Amino acid sequence: MALTDRVREILTWYSSENPGTQTNIVRLLNHGTLAGTGRLVILPVDQGFEHGPLRSFGPNPDGNDPDYHYQLAIDSGCNAYAAPLGPIEVGASKFAGQVPLILKVNNSDTLAKIDQPCSAITASVEDALRLGCSAIGYTIYPGSGQRNTMYQDLREITLEAKRKGLVVITWSYPRGAGLSKAGETAVDVCSYAAHIAAQLGAHFVKVKPPTAHIEQEESKKAFEKNPVKLDTLEDRVRFVVRSTFGGKRVVIFSGGESKGAADVVEEVKEIAKGGGFGSILGRNAFQRPRAEGLKLLQDVIGVYKSAG
Amino acid sequence: MALTDRVREILTWYSSENPGTQTNIVRLLNHGTLAGTGRLVILPVDQGFEHGPLRSFGPNPDGNDPDYHYQLAIDSGCNAYAAPLGPIEVGASKFAGQVPLILKVNNSDTLAKIDQPCSAITASVEDALRLGCSAIGYTIYPGSGQRNTMYQDLREITLEAKRKGLVVITWSYPRGAGLSKAGETAVDVCSYAAHIAAQLGAHFVKVKPPTAHIEQEESKKAFEKNPVKLDTLEDRVRFVVRSTFGGKRVVIFSGGESKGAADVVEEVKEIAKGGGFGSILGRNAFQRPRAEGLKLLQDVIGVYKSAG
Amino acid sequence: MALTDRVREILTWYSSENPGTQTNIVRLLNHGTLAGTGRLVILPVDQGFEHGPLRSFGPNPDGNDPDYHYQLAIDSGCNAYAAPLGPIEVGASKFAGQVPLILKVNNSDTLAKIDQPCSAITASVEDALRLGCSAIGYTIYPGSGQRNTMYQDLREITLEAKRKGLVVITWSYPRGAGLSKAGETAVDVCSYAAHIAAQLGAHFVKVKPPTAHIEQEESKKAFEKNPVKLDTLEDRVRFVVRSTFGGKRVVIFSGGESKGAADVVEEVKEIAKGGGFGSILGRNAFQRPRAEGLKLLQDVIGVYKSAG
Amino acid sequence: MALTDRVREILTWYSSENPGTQTNIVRLLNHGTLAGTGRLVILPVDQGFEHGPLRSFGPNPDGNDPDYHYQLAIDSGCNAYAAPLGPIEVGASKFAGQVPLILKVNNSDTLAKIDQPCSAITASVEDALRLGCSAIGYTIYPGSGQRNTMYQDLREITLEAKRKGLVVITWSYPRGAGLSKAGETAVDVCSYAAHIAAQLGAHFVKVKPPTAHIEQEESKKAFEKNPVKLDTLEDRVRFVVRSTFGGKRVVIFSGGESKGAADVVEEVKEIAKGGGFGSILGRNAFQRPRAEGLKLLQDVIGVYKSAG
Amino acid sequence: MALTDRVREILTWYSSENPGTQTNIVRLLNHGTLAGTGRLVILPVDQGFEHGPLRSFGPNPDGNDPDYHYQLAIDSGCNAYAAPLGPIEVGASKFAGQVPLILKVNNSDTLAKIDQPCSAITASVEDALRLGCSAIGYTIYPGSGQRNTMYQDLREITLEAKRKGLVVITWSYPRGAGLSKAGETAVDVCSYAAHIAAQLGAHFVKVKPPTAHIEQEESKKAFEKNPVKLDTLEDRVRFVVRSTFGGKRVVIFSGGESKGAADVVEEVKEIAKGGGFGSILGRNAFQRPRAEGLKLLQDVIGVYKSAG
Repeated sequence: MALTDRVREILTWYSSENPGTQTNIVRLLNHGTLAGTGRLVILPVDQGFEHGPLRSFGPNPDGNDPDYHYQLAIDSGCNAYAAPLGPIEVGASKFAGQVPLILKVNNSDTLAKIDQPCSAITASVEDALRLGCSAIGYTIYPGSGQRNTMYQDLREITLEAKRKGLVVITWSYPRGAGLSKAGETAVDVCSYAAHIAAQLGAHFVKVKPPTAHIEQEESKKAFEKNPVKLDTLEDRVRFVVRSTFGGKRVVIFSGGESKGAADVVEEVKEIAKGGGFGSILGRNAFQRPRAEGLKLLQDVIGVYKSAG
Repeated sequence: MALTDRVREILTWYSSENPGTQTNIVRLLNHGTLAGTGRLVILPVDQGFEHGPLRSFGPNPDGNDPDYHYQLAIDSGCNAYAAPLGPIEVGASKFAGQVPLILKVNNSDTLAKIDQPCSAITASVEDALRLGCSAIGYTIYPGSGQRNTMYQDLREITLEAKRKGLVVITWSYPRGAGLSKAGETAVDVCSYAAHIAAQLGAHFVKVKPPTAHIEQEESKKAFEKNPVKLDTLEDRVRFVVRSTFGGKRVVIFSGGESKGAADVVEEVKEIAKGGGFGSILGRNAFQRPRAEGLKLLQDVIGVYKSAG
Repeated sequence: MALTDRVREILTWYSSENPGTQTNIVRLLNHGTLAGTGRLVILPVDQGFEHGPLRSFGPNPDGNDPDYHYQLAIDSGCNAYAAPLGPIEVGASKFAGQVPLILKVNNSDTLAKIDQPCSAITASVEDALRLGCSAIGYTIYPGSGQRNTMYQDLREITLEAKRKGLVVITWSYPRGAGLSKAGETAVDVCSYAAHIAAQLGAHFVKVKPPTAHIEQEESKKAFEKNPVKLDTLEDRVRFVVRSTFGGKRVVIFSGGESKGAADVVEEVKEIAKGGGFGSILGRNAFQRPRAEGLKLLQDVIGVYKSAG
Repeated sequence: MALTDRVREILTWYSSENPGTQTNIVRLLNHGTLAGTGRLVILPVDQGFEHGPLRSFGPNPDGNDPDYHYQLAIDSGCNAYAAPLGPIEVGASKFAGQVPLILKVNNSDTLAKIDQPCSAITASVEDALRLGCSAIGYTIYPGSGQRNTMYQDLREITLEAKRKGLVVITWSYPRGAGLSKAGETAVDVCSYAAHIAAQLGAHFVKVKPPTAHIEQEESKKAFEKNPVKLDTLEDRVRFVVRSTFGGKRVVIFSGGESKGAADVVEEVKEIAKGGGFGSILGRNAFQRPRAEGLKLLQDVIGVYKSAG
Repeated sequence: MALTDRVREILTWYSSENPGTQTNIVRLLNHGTLAGTGRLVILPVDQGFEHGPLRSFGPNPDGNDPDYHYQLAIDSGCNAYAAPLGPIEVGASKFAGQVPLILKVNNSDTLAKIDQPCSAITASVEDALRLGCSAIGYTIYPGSGQRNTMYQDLREITLEAKRKGLVVITWSYPRGAGLSKAGETAVDVCSYAAHIAAQLGAHFVKVKPPTAHIEQEESKKAFEKNPVKLDTLEDRVRFVVRSTFGGKRVVIFSGGESKGAADVVEEVKEIAKGGGFGSILGRNAFQRPRAEGLKLLQDVIGVYKSAG
């Protein structure tokens, strides 16, 4: 399809990238129900790796089969489907060309006890290319004592991905000894985390919806000197988007823990109003029976569609 | 031989792999007594490395000679023979083309005291290719503080193996500071471990037969919310297979510690009924006098043969 | 423009470099208001990475947008603009050829708690080349227990940069368990730090303005034996420049924490009189409203211009 | 010379190796007084590195000169001379083609205090090739917490050595926190250590003569279940050889600490009777005056010669 | 110039090296006042890196400029000038071909507190080649817990240097937790350290003048069994040279801490009588006013000249 003005505008932020990467940015923005709007809803399924198949797929055992998620992403009109190596491989040939793919190239599990969190690299740019993916996804944990390892691995992967025309999407989840539990979603930390991902060269940045909590002492002082309206999620999303190169990077928000469908939709409305570029919804989508999950994804997509 | 419907079906799960890897999957599935059934019995001999030649081959000293195992695998009608570098090298030329080979590319010994278990990489994809192997085998210890090292090394080996047309078989043995001894074979942990191996891109996954023990608190809660029948080994095998991409990955089960031949066969019957794809029998096969070991392997193969 | 005698003299200090690097040295020295004087004023914006967007851009939110800094550097007549990967990418195509670029290839954030400071490598020489940069910037922390890692990474980057015709600018900031807080800017430590950067092959060296504090016992003894006039900043700058190959390396000084515009200009006058080759002004430039920041940069440039 | 039946038989154990490696195996087996017997006596001189020149060459200062050892190995009729990089380099050109060379590619010294022993890699396969060597020698310390590092480095070196037609000889010396001092030469540990070296792909394995001590609890139980005659050194050597692929790998035994010439010869007789493939004699040979050392080497060679 | 008999003799010890390395050995031996004698005096200037510019160049500030040292080495008739990357770069083009250069490729500073000393690698063989150097210099600290890292890095650098025709000169300075302060220059440790450097493949070895102290218990016992005359520095130098392949490696001695010119010359006389191949004099040369430094270097050179 022809480029809309909005997609054309977004592309100007990525004018330093090669045509290969620009093409894949368009593939992500021009697929599904939200094609052309500059908004995205993505179905990510790395829960099995992160929390095990029992907790992930117990509520809806059909989700054990990776093909289920391919089909759900296609049928719901999502912009893309994101998963680790194994599940992408199961359906990459079968569903070839039907939905843009994001290969999640690092992952963690919860069987080991680790002080300073650090995901393992579990796939590569070459895997993404041979499997027909448009993007790679990578998680960083700012706040972890192992952050340098993650940043440096990401640097190498990013360089190779850009050289070979892929899009880089960075999940930026603050975590580690330097942060309190509440601090992991604090608005100052969340905006900083989104900013770091952008500094590291991410095209798209994924963060959790920011809370009103403020974690760092220096942040409190900074807000006192230069107050910012942070009362509602809408306000905070606006602040996070502004913190990410003044809005010149696509920032999308995760759906977080599973909750009622109505709550999900309400949250997404706030994100959309605050200028968030989209949502990435996993558990809330695939832990419901297929009909319900499909409807929720479509409702969320509808929120962004009507937000324009 | 021509492909049976079952082998053809299994191949659809690996449709993203190149013809080289698909060819080697067929070589493993179409060899020996179980050729064409989609089931496998494999003879693995890495005990010497893991527990020393004395404990491994003391009961049947003929087993010190690697050629003994080549011949046993051939005569019993196994699908394949798996071993570390040294023993594969001894017979690779002598028995060339007579039985599919799986090169075990990482191994541990029990002379050193190690807190966080991690196998050493002891062979490579290039070794597998020059020795005519169809697959490489790799052990991960989910639960170990060194799991990231193992996952990342496996990622590199997997990528090279797939590029060069080999099959990747992952031994997934939960172990380490994060787990109790009973937890190493707990059904929640075992299914999670099989799932991780699949997520990491394994073609075939090897796990221990799961017990009814449940290790993680979160697992107990998850089973309460979404109950699953786990009373018999058959039930638990079914659960583990389902947890591994809804059955779209070949999951085989180890024979565990040496025991009576009748017990082995009974256990295998449960595994076969639960949909397990096969067994990998080491000590129970080669620690018996040759005639007994041969018979036991044939009996086990017979169970799968009659299970269809 | 033709080379002035001063630029020609400076080039003799770099006569071992290839013509590619010499060309980029000229590009840096012959751009902006100070072109041809052998002095430089550079706009660096890595504050967002180091202290977060809130503290960095809260006073002047327009600074969230990397394009703002490109334009500020161009309009103020700076010699160059320095930033990490992400911000350079945003404007590299849009502003191509309008101002020399310095890609900052390593960076730290302040979300994690780290004992021995060490920046992560966040970009590469290849990035600098594909983005049209003239130089790479790298920070070392002499005094850190991780200094060897930083020196060795720098060695590799320096070798590649020189091979490919780039300029290497080293930020040398003493920091770590071996030093007191006051010692980080002590004149003995500062001169040592500048010297180390030069020993490691830096073309240009950036340090903080040295204080009159003397950190190391051996330094006190050394000054007693061979006294040096260190009373004023001018004296100390002269000592630091002399300590850097007798003045045969370009040494520039950071502006430090934000302060009154008049104070900044006074400090710069001392630096200029002491033979400092220039200033690198970040927070003091971009945390003010644009008109004020622009004027301050121009005033500072004016100081060097009139110093000749 | 033409191959004897025994050498031809030994070669069948290495039928998976390329002709380059097979050629070098023949070079080692067909050189010196024992040519064609399938037995080997090797002169190794890495004592200088391991214990310093004073303790190593004090008793016979002529041994400081590497050429001394070349000449001793040649004159005594040894199969090969083994040493680290420096000494091999001194004489490699001068004595080119006069005696097969084994380049010892890792080494330890005794100036530092180390908890978990690990030799440094001090030479490479490329060094061996440019210096005309037939084999590389590598030491592993099973039982050390750093064993994985050693095994993995060995794996890479082994792969390259085999690719380029060299022979791999592994010194397997159990050592480290997991073992008592007596355990380092215990028969269960020694046989396990020889087995590990073979599993890792060694062509020839070097161990210390095993004592009657049994180190591991599991070993005691295993011997109770399946008794083995271990009374004499001859018995124990037979057990170690059997434990190394049922005798399908060449196992040679070190001479140990310096002692009376008669004791050395008596020990070697036991080794020869037990089926040991040879001896590797350092200190006992070069710490004596040349005439005595020469005679001892010839006597030891004579033992193997008459053992057939 | 034609080769003297002595240089021709020395070359026979390096007959395994390629003609490129042999050529550079000749360049070092055939330059300056001592050309053809087989003795060398080298001017090394890495003090700035090791102890800072203040302590290094405070007594004679002209020494801040690297060109000063180039000129001093040339005018005094030294065989070579040795320095780290930065200073070599400053003058390499300006003084091209006027004096053989030794690029010091690893270095330490004294700003950080480190338990187990280890120099950082700060330059490479490629740097040495592009700058026209004849040799690389590398420091090892036998006795440090990090010695393996240093040995292994040196191994790689040595291999590359020899492949590309450079000379390898190893500074062997025992240091670390395993040694007392007095032990760092003890005659048993010094001779062991020189031996290790030679074992690692060094062409030339640099050590400190050995004291009569004996550090290790085993050394005392060894000297009791096999007494060696160690009363004078001459004796001890002779012992160290003998310990380094029986004199078949060039061993040179450092000048140590700054002291009176007469003391330096006296020490050098002992070294020359003991068969030391030369001296490497830094602080004692460049911390004096130029005329004095020049005279001292010439006096030292004179000692070796008259020693023949």
